[in-house]
Amino acid sequence: MLTRVKSAVANFMGGIMAGSSGSEHGGGGCGGSDLPLRFPYGRPEFLGLSQDEVECSADHIARPILILKETRRLPWATGYAEVINAGKSTHNEDQASCEVLTVKKKAGAITSTPNRNSAKRRSSLPNGEGLQLKENSESEGVSCHYWSLFDGHAGSGAAVVASRLLQHHITEQLQDIVEILKNSAVLPPTCLGEEPDHTPANSRTLTRAASLRGGVGAPGSPSTPPTRFFTEKKIPHECLVIGALESAFKEMDLQIERERSSYSISGGCTALIVICLLGKLYVANAGDSRAIIIRNGEIIPMSSEFTPETERQRLQYLAFMQPHLLGNEFTHLEFPRRVQRKELGKKMLYRDFNMTGWAYKTIEDDDLKFPLIYGEGKKARVMATIGVTRGLGDHDLKVHDSNIYIKPFLSSAPESDALRSCGQSHPGRTHPVMKESGNGRAISIPSGRIILTFPFTKGDAEDLRSLIPYHSPVEIQYCSQAKLRKATLAHQPSLSPPGVGPCSSLSV
Amino acid sequence: MLTRVKSAVANFMGGIMAGSSGSEHGGGGCGGSDLPLRFPYGRPEFLGLSQDEVECSADHIARPILILKETRRLPWATGYAEVINAGKSTHNEDQASCEVLTVKKKAGAITSTPNRNSAKRRSSLPNGEGLQLKENSESEGVSCHYWSLFDGHAGSGAAVVASRLLQHHITEQLQDIVEILKNSAVLPPTCLGEEPDHTPANSRTLTRAASLRGGVGAPGSPSTPPTRFFTEKKIPHECLVIGALESAFKEMDLQIERERSSYSISGGCTALIVICLLGKLYVANAGDSRAIIIRNGEIIPMSSEFTPETERQRLQYLAFMQPHLLGNEFTHLEFPRRVQRKELGKKMLYRDFNMTGWAYKTIEDDDLKFPLIYGEGKKARVMATIGVTRGLGDHDLKVHDSNIYIKPFLSSAPESDALRSCGQSHPGRTHPVMKESGNGRAISIPSGRIILTFPFTKGDAEDLRSLIPYHSPVEIQYCSQAKLRKATLAHQPSLSPPGVGPCSSLSV
Repeated sequence: MLTRVKSAVANFMGGIMAGSSGSEHGGGGCGGSDLPLRFPYGRPEFLGLSQDEVECSADHIARPILILKETRRLPWATGYAEVINAGKSTHNEDQASCEVLTVKKKAGAITSTPNRNSAKRRSSLPNGEGLQLKENSESEGVSCHYWSLFDGHAGSGAAVVASRLLQHHITEQLQDIVEILKNSAVLPPTCLGEEPDHTPANSRTLTRAASLRGGVGAPGSPSTPPTRFFTEKKIPHECLVIGALESAFKEMDLQIERERSSYSISGGCTALIVICLLGKLYVANAGDSRAIIIRNGEIIPMSSEFTPETERQRLQYLAFMQPHLLGNEFTHLEFPRRVQRKELGKKMLYRDFNMTGWAYKTIEDDDLKFPLIYGEGKKARVMATIGVTRGLGDHDLKVHDSNIYIKPFLSSAPESDALRSCGQSHPGRTHPVMKESGNGRAISIPSGRIILTFPFTKGDAEDLRSLIPYHSPVEIQYCSQAKLRKATLAHQPSLSPPGVGPCSSLSV
Repeated sequence: MLTRVKSAVANFMGGIMAGSSGSEHGGGGCGGSDLPLRFPYGRPEFLGLSQDEVECSADHIARPILILKETRRLPWATGYAEVINAGKSTHNEDQASCEVLTVKKKAGAITSTPNRNSAKRRSSLPNGEGLQLKENSESEGVSCHYWSLFDGHAGSGAAVVASRLLQHHITEQLQDIVEILKNSAVLPPTCLGEEPDHTPANSRTLTRAASLRGGVGAPGSPSTPPTRFFTEKKIPHECLVIGALESAFKEMDLQIERERSSYSISGGCTALIVICLLGKLYVANAGDSRAIIIRNGEIIPMSSEFTPETERQRLQYLAFMQPHLLGNEFTHLEFPRRVQRKELGKKMLYRDFNMTGWAYKTIEDDDLKFPLIYGEGKKARVMATIGVTRGLGDHDLKVHDSNIYIKPFLSSAPESDALRSCGQSHPGRTHPVMKESGNGRAISIPSGRIILTFPFTKGDAEDLRSLIPYHSPVEIQYCSQAKLRKATLAHQPSLSPPGVGPCSSLSV
């Protein structure tokens, strides 16, 4: 890989194209900050690039394709490929990381032997140590494989920070429940340090009226008699892990928000992670990246994308309930196109937050405002500014030339799913993976390839199928920048001889 | 059917059991109103019951099963069965209706020849005329088959009104678009009376920055140059019908709200409808009733249920953003069980509106409030009061012994779906039905049985499969009261000889 980076040095000076995505995003918060960077810009640590290699990788003319050839460096024969975008930004704003986290119980978690070692998260130190794998995964702690992909925009700051710190937050959250997770025979306690209340058998027959009395009596009289606990939900272990991932995403976003005052953390990023913990796979996705499993040529989505179109109703609902967020410049209603003043009084198709169909409404002055959600497919935008609706950062992102903040409409909450996998942490074995999705349907993946990638077209999916060679029973592939093949064909065909690496001519 | 009703007269006096669902629902608005009824209480018109038959049908001891034996009376060999509940309410609070609506274009709709006949909706007059079918379905208007099922609670008022008037609102909404729907070769115009704007080819290549400028320029300068319309969504005809159904549900709910001042309209009801319009089937569901298709013994859901559990995140999100709706007595957070004061400061599992997993939080005073959503399965309630989250009516429903209204959390917006069906209006032909659901999967139903029913268990589903005989290629079945078979076996085995009617021993 080093060679192909060197081969691009000659063109480096011509590499930067006009227009930084910062300006594209209307004050994305990466412009002219005197604050120091939270972390220096770089490429994913597992690539182990030198500074000049990092610079060469940003050559917009050569667009060298960086791949990870020594897949032994990462677990599960993890592959990786990236290429700088076609001039959209000075640097590659995307990031990725792959580590083995060691989760140890910490004081406060339910255990008779408190352990102050909670600070010992060596594998998640941002110094590359994490790349020496397997080392202490047999230790007292539970080892957790972690893969992440961050699609940055309006600057590289948020993606860099997230690629360094999100795993810390995940480890932190898992520490509270690791002892509970280890004891898979017993359901998690509802209240820590207590035996879960058991519901009296007869209580399930209480009427709505009884429930009602319970409901109304309670707030006034907090010393509620136990007889009122006539239902108690049993929470499976997977839900605790998913809750931990959701909390970690939230904490990561809050940390970025806090540290904006002391560091320059530009832009925002989507976040897609996969972890393997205690023999189960978990996916958490906030943004429009994708996690898929390719099995026997079939592409099985492990996550769904969040876009202005898929999240239309959530965004419209928020704007409907808190119209001040629209700064009197936008309307929460959706129209098939912009409304013209000459159309006042006419009937035009529209959609409100609680509609999936379309109806005609008489156009009023308010409908002339710019729509909260506008555009189709990849062109769909929230307040004409941003094309993704979930992720981290973007706390300073405003509508261009206005004081309207976008962040209230963006969510850091990931969609999470759990997949049971057998022996994932033992490469060489077969790895059946059972999908436990909401509808309960299960898919068996005796030999799956898990791919973290940006949104791709149907044609790209074909390429994914055909171009990624089979390595191990379960193989993780990153595709950390779109249009790899296009870049290859357009600029550097020599850079992608067939079979150089798993992703060397991948088009995503 | 008359005979089986008569056979129950003897027991009538003992039929009423204690507890009206009005009180069960904590002031459901049906208590002691001096206002006249909007419509007299009765059973579905198509049953054609006399007043004493109606009274007999409410015998809680005999629990006679009312079925529709002359399926010729209704289109598509529509079957029907109902039985009074086991003493939950004085009357059967459920309703149903089946009509053929005639939709004619009305003035204001895009047509060169305005037609003032829009008031002529003879088939939806609430006088039973609608039962003489086929009559003028060949007229200038478009005929639309209509089936509806309403699950009433806290009184029968809302269900009776909805069973009489919802079809009017649907007809009203369809009148605006019937001419557009007829012309299936041309996409619906974005703006009525205008040719749809066509997008300049090059405009699709505009950048996010251009979109941004468009977005910000627009609100200040409403005379927006056409070049800014670089996207225009094409809306298929089905979306107009779905939009019309959504608008009709909304209008129906608003009418009930308005007319509360002059009429007594007690309680609320779920609403599930199926219409066949221009060779396509549409389903709209607001509540926890079900529309299913049984084909070759397979049960294919046409709708999904709305319950406090399935709508948890919407309800929590609303409460989070408008906490005053909780009247300082409820918390929007979910806990596996009620929190006790002695647990203050301890860590308990909880879920917020943006979580699907569970995490531990330290219990604070606010967490001692009664949870917005509490209970599991059929026992799940919103503010300890109501077990459904969508439907019509309930405008006066309050939390028992409080001034906290439930209605803001209830939605009248249905979930709608379109199914293509060929020749549905010509009994005798085969009727392939293609499901066009969101995910685009299509199912072919050469001979389907469409069933509108209350929620049922897996066992009940088996009964549905086995008990409903095949009549016509596509057959609509109503099951308008739960536990038909149980009632039969418990009280009136003689009332359900096998094969008396399609639903005579149906358990749903």
